[in-house]
Amino acid sequence: MGTPIRRGRGRRPADEVRAEILTAAGELLLEEGMAGFTVEKVAERAGASRVTVHKWWPSRGALAFDGYFAATSPVLAFPDTGDIEADLRSQLRNWVRLATRTSAGRVVRELLGAAQTDGDLMAAWRERYSGPRRALAVQRLDAAKAAGQLRKDVDSEGLVDQLWGACYHRLLIPDLPLTEQFADRLVDTLFQGVRGEAAAPSPLREKALGVPPHR
Amino acid sequence: MGTPIRRGRGRRPADEVRAEILTAAGELLLEEGMAGFTVEKVAERAGASRVTVHKWWPSRGALAFDGYFAATSPVLAFPDTGDIEADLRSQLRNWVRLATRTSAGRVVRELLGAAQTDGDLMAAWRERYSGPRRALAVQRLDAAKAAGQLRKDVDSEGLVDQLWGACYHRLLIPDLPLTEQFADRLVDTLFQGVRGEAAAPSPLREKALGVPPHR
Repeated sequence: MGTPIRRGRGRRPADEVRAEILTAAGELLLEEGMAGFTVEKVAERAGASRVTVHKWWPSRGALAFDGYFAATSPVLAFPDTGDIEADLRSQLRNWVRLATRTSAGRVVRELLGAAQTDGDLMAAWRERYSGPRRALAVQRLDAAKAAGQLRKDVDSEGLVDQLWGACYHRLLIPDLPLTEQFADRLVDTLFQGVRGEAAAPSPLREKALGVPPHR
Repeated sequence: MGTPIRRGRGRRPADEVRAEILTAAGELLLEEGMAGFTVEKVAERAGASRVTVHKWWPSRGALAFDGYFAATSPVLAFPDTGDIEADLRSQLRNWVRLATRTSAGRVVRELLGAAQTDGDLMAAWRERYSGPRRALAVQRLDAAKAAGQLRKDVDSEGLVDQLWGACYHRLLIPDLPLTEQFADRLVDTLFQGVRGEAAAPSPLREKALGVPPHR
């Protein structure tokens, strides 16, 4: 991978330079993680000056964030083939591959780890990354509800936590490996449901126990 | 809350002193978080000397860990009333209350945050906390499978990630609030399944698309 360093070219349009810096930032981050990520290396890789990079990105952190989103967005796009189950499987497998076969997993662990005691970093993560990613996922899930492929009363936001959140759980607390098979099973479990034949159907059970309805 | 400080009492048996130190450590941690957690304060609260505390716990971190487990284990016990759905709801609600109404949530965020770049801390977390907690959850889920209340082919380990992992996801990336209602819906979604009426039944779909079986 890695874009070759370009020097001595004629003046490029600003949009092009900006896009190349972003690409370079994303590539460098996924190759080396935050430890090896510097504005200088990004500038060199993009054939731009540090001054130019700083014109658009005030800090190393902001550049890393935007580079991360730019690099991962295409891989993490939410396909819509009309089959939500197949689409979730392929998107989650891409997520797992990105987290386990590139430095993305390490970058996420480093950033989210630091964000636990750094409110500014957490705010940036939510605004620039997890918020927009969650919105895209919910949009795809809501389309599947509208198409009757998911039950209408499913909580799309909660489903985000039970699919991608379950993967984050294995990434951040690695008691067990994060694999594509694991991702597949998350989808299986949700589509098949977990109720065994000896379990009472939920409405009857709740009535019998006097548990108040919670919706 | 908080055990009153006891001084000038006669010699207590070592087991009793150890238990009181552990209780004091757990209480202090949940009240003040890691920032306010010192060996000195624990010793004072337990009416013991720092030397005595250090005899059993080599470091502040080890004392905090053991205190945390001691304080939270009773609250986070897995009930077995014979109704797995009700039991999961009550256990998860306890989890959410602990994480949101005491300092436990902050302690977990601080420790897990630091553990992302501290291999020793992560190893300690997994060995002393998440590993044992996961084993207890799986034990309860397996009992429910044996009783026919959960489908036999459900992946108990994956279910841990889709219940408690989903809660950790909201704790560590607070895009949306962690509430008891959220916990209830996680259980609803898993027991009811998410498949809509317009979705093809899974085996047919997989056969039609030529997707290989993944179990």
